[in-house]
Parts: sequence; structure tokens; C-alpha cells
Amino acid sequence: MHILLTNDDGYHAPGIQTLYRTLRSQTKHDISIVAPESQRSATGHSITLFQPLFLTKYELDGDLKGYAVSGTPSDCVKIAIQGELISKPDLLISGINQGSNLGTDVFYSGTVSAAMEGVLLGIPALAVSLASYEYDNFEPSALYLAEHLDYLVEEHRKGLMNINFPGKLQTEWRGAKVTRLGKAVYENVFERRVNPHGKTYYWQCGNLTQDQEGDTDLRAIQDGFVSITPMHSDLTDYTDLQVWQTRLSESDIMSVERDK
Amino acid sequence: MHILLTNDDGYHAPGIQTLYRTLRSQTKHDISIVAPESQRSATGHSITLFQPLFLTKYELDGDLKGYAVSGTPSDCVKIAIQGELISKPDLLISGINQGSNLGTDVFYSGTVSAAMEGVLLGIPALAVSLASYEYDNFEPSALYLAEHLDYLVEEHRKGLMNINFPGKLQTEWRGAKVTRLGKAVYENVFERRVNPHGKTYYWQCGNLTQDQEGDTDLRAIQDGFVSITPMHSDLTDYTDLQVWQTRLSESDIMSVERDK
Repeated sequence: MHILLTNDDGYHAPGIQTLYRTLRSQTKHDISIVAPESQRSATGHSITLFQPLFLTKYELDGDLKGYAVSGTPSDCVKIAIQGELISKPDLLISGINQGSNLGTDVFYSGTVSAAMEGVLLGIPALAVSLASYEYDNFEPSALYLAEHLDYLVEEHRKGLMNINFPGKLQTEWRGAKVTRLGKAVYENVFERRVNPHGKTYYWQCGNLTQDQEGDTDLRAIQDGFVSITPMHSDLTDYTDLQVWQTRLSESDIMSVERDK
Repeated sequence: MHILLTNDDGYHAPGIQTLYRTLRSQTKHDISIVAPESQRSATGHSITLFQPLFLTKYELDGDLKGYAVSGTPSDCVKIAIQGELISKPDLLISGINQGSNLGTDVFYSGTVSAAMEGVLLGIPALAVSLASYEYDNFEPSALYLAEHLDYLVEEHRKGLMNINFPGKLQTEWRGAKVTRLGKAVYENVFERRVNPHGKTYYWQCGNLTQDQEGDTDLRAIQDGFVSITPMHSDLTDYTDLQVWQTRLSESDIMSVERDK
């Protein structure tokens, strides 16, 4: 396979570099890297339309190239594939991110959005995160991925898989669980401060509360399991769609009053 | 109702200001505005964690306040509700955006992401867009919304409704359709240029191709209809979830090999 690596922590971040070295040493796949030149966490699915994108090229093994892009994670995937920077990949892996990407927080995640961009462009994708901001040994997660990669991809040919590893020693992992996305609820989200010039400003932060549901990704990570969540890319609410089609066909909202 | 308005074109953009004036004159609802201080299109669901947020306050009618925020559309919704800038709204309206937000492009949309943020925080939300970058008369769309608002909200108490208006004279609208999200496919997405210093750079743009499917939002707008799409906030693929839970329980991937 030809695998494209990207992330939102930046081209030189230890997560993506450890993943690259591990996949090179443990598998026979071709690996390209197209990643942001700097930290782009919490950028969500943003893309860069009003500024130009600049690239820095790095030599990888053989004919393969790496590119650091002056844009967002989604820009990286778009320019790699739609801009034909590299030959079309068979798989996209986004990560390994420093910090979890779980539950409704996936909407804010550059890591998951980059993987989603791959899926929108027809490339199966894995988003991979290490669920800690302190514990930074990415090697056990990278080895686990390398070992199970063929199985994960063989069984999963089109969609997005969101994988989070517990942020602790592998000897403390309790196994792996297939989970649904939970609801990430935060407390004390905004901290109000006053700057030396007397002007009020706010820092956005907050503490994630415990997820009490038993079958979510948030709960699996809290409990020390590897969490594997299959995701789709269709935000249409088909249940509501049917209800609305029936209701609205009986109302005047469907017709435009032209003589107003 | 207390309605919170936001957008991604900025606090002073004509779309949100026309919507504010129209809702004030045509309805009895209380209206607050918390919107980005400047243009934040294509920011997706990004949030601002690594810079502080500054606010500029504007007086609105009665005790109501407006705030321009030095952040993204999602920041605006979060600080309005979680930061308790305003009393809890009964409804969030994001828009009216200059330019369509249709199909898979909703992932990049600051307008739709702000509405989604409302839903994640328990506030029903409408994302509203005028499907043209040239035609800029927002008044017919604002009047249509004001007229049908109670009906839209009464029938839709929790989710997100993505509404796009045709970017042309109301006399040319052909009616309204309830639609699913289509697939936005672009051609010639990246334009390569060389700057005066000899360095290559890329502009991201591209031409949206026609949607051949009959029941999508993209097609409804192409055909001159108002498009109304109910959206949900759960990206879990429940079909894949069941398949994976069965498959993985039979494989060794679920157990961690601890003695490696």
C-alpha cells in the first residue's frame, strides 16, 4: 500500500515521526508525509481559501517525498490528493496526535477532520490519538497500529476509523473496545482575566467531566482501553428528513408567495 | 423567544445585520448578537485555545447586548452560552451567510459549524445561507425566515436545520424542498503560481460541478428552490459499529499482548 501520513501537531512532531519510523521498519508499505509546518490543533475542518499555501519539501526513502504545508490538516490532505503532490494513496493515517480526540470533540479536531477529508476524497482513513498531553511515548501505539494495520484496512475499505490509545504504559492497557462517540461535556470553559492595560479577555479551556455511559469512546479511554470508533461522513438526519417532507408538504412554507 | 444570532462573515456583515433588523421589525422576539469581529469563512468548527479572546460590546434594543469576538464562529457560540455572556437563548440562527453552504462543504463552513455548536450545547439552531457571492439582497430570505420562524422551530426542537436560499430575485424562486446533503465535487482545486522571488505557492479555489442526484440540497439550489436540510450531530457509523463489534471479538486485536 501507499500510505499518506498527516497530523495537526505539525510535520516534525514526535507522534507522526514515530509513526513514520515504525511503519517503515515494521511493514513494507510506501509512506509519504504531507503535514502542517506548525502546530494546528483545534483547527477543526478549516481550509485556507484567502491566503496562498507554501510548501517545504523533504526527501524520504526512495522516490517518496514529504511536504510541510503552511496550512491546516485538511489543506494538507486536499493539496496532497487534489493537488496531486503525491501519487494517490491507498490509505490515510492522521496522527499520532498528542492528546485525545473523543466524542463530540471530534468536531474541533484537526486530526479527525484531516481523516474525514480523506474519506470525502475517496481514501479510507484512520485518525489516531494518544490520550494524554503528558505521556509522550508514541512507540507502543505505533507498533500496535503497524501490527494490526492490514486487518484494520482489509475490514474497512471506505470509511473513517477513529482510534484513541490510553495515555499510559502499555502494561496498563486493558484491551481494545469498539465504541460509539460519546458526549464531551466541559466545566469552567472560560477563564476571565484583565490585561495590564485594563482590558478584559478570556481563555478557553475547561475540564472534561466523566462520561457515565458505558459504551462510548470517552468511557473506554477513561477505563484504560484502546477505543476504536467507526465514523461516517453524512450529517443528514434521515429520520427528521422523512418527518419534515410529510409535514412541510401540508404547509404553505413549500410554496413561495410571489406577489409580496 | 430569545434568539442568538451569529455568523462567519463578521458582526457588521450585511447578512446578519439585515436578519437582525428584519426579525426586530417583523417578530416580537428578543435578539442578541455574538459574532466574529471579522470575516471567518471556511474556518470549519475550529476553536481558539492558544490565543485569548477579546470582546467589543454593542448596545442593542432594551437590555440586550451585541458582542464582536476576536475568534471563530464556534468560539462565539461557546462564549455566548458557556461563558454566559447573554441569557440562555431558545434558538440560535447562524447567518445569513453570503454564499451557499451545501452538501459535504458543510464540514468547512463556519456558518454551519456555529449552528452545530449550538446543538451540541442543547440549543436548536438554524444555519442560513444565500447561495451567491454576487447577489446580495438578503431581505427576501430574512423575511421568509421571519414569516416561517415559529413553524420551523415548533416542529424542530432540538436539531440543526441547514437552509439555503437561491441567490437570485425572489420572483425566480421555484418553491422550497426538504433535501439531504449532497456530495460537493470540485474541479481544478489548486492553482499553482510563482511569486516574484521565484517561490512556488498555491491558491485553493476550484469549480463546483453539477450534482446529478435528484434529492440533494446542491440540486435543489441549482434548480432554484429554497433548500431545507435537517442535520444531526452524531458521526458514529452504527452499521459499521455492529459489524466491527462482531468481527473484532473474534480476533486478537481486542486483547493487548502484554509480554511484548
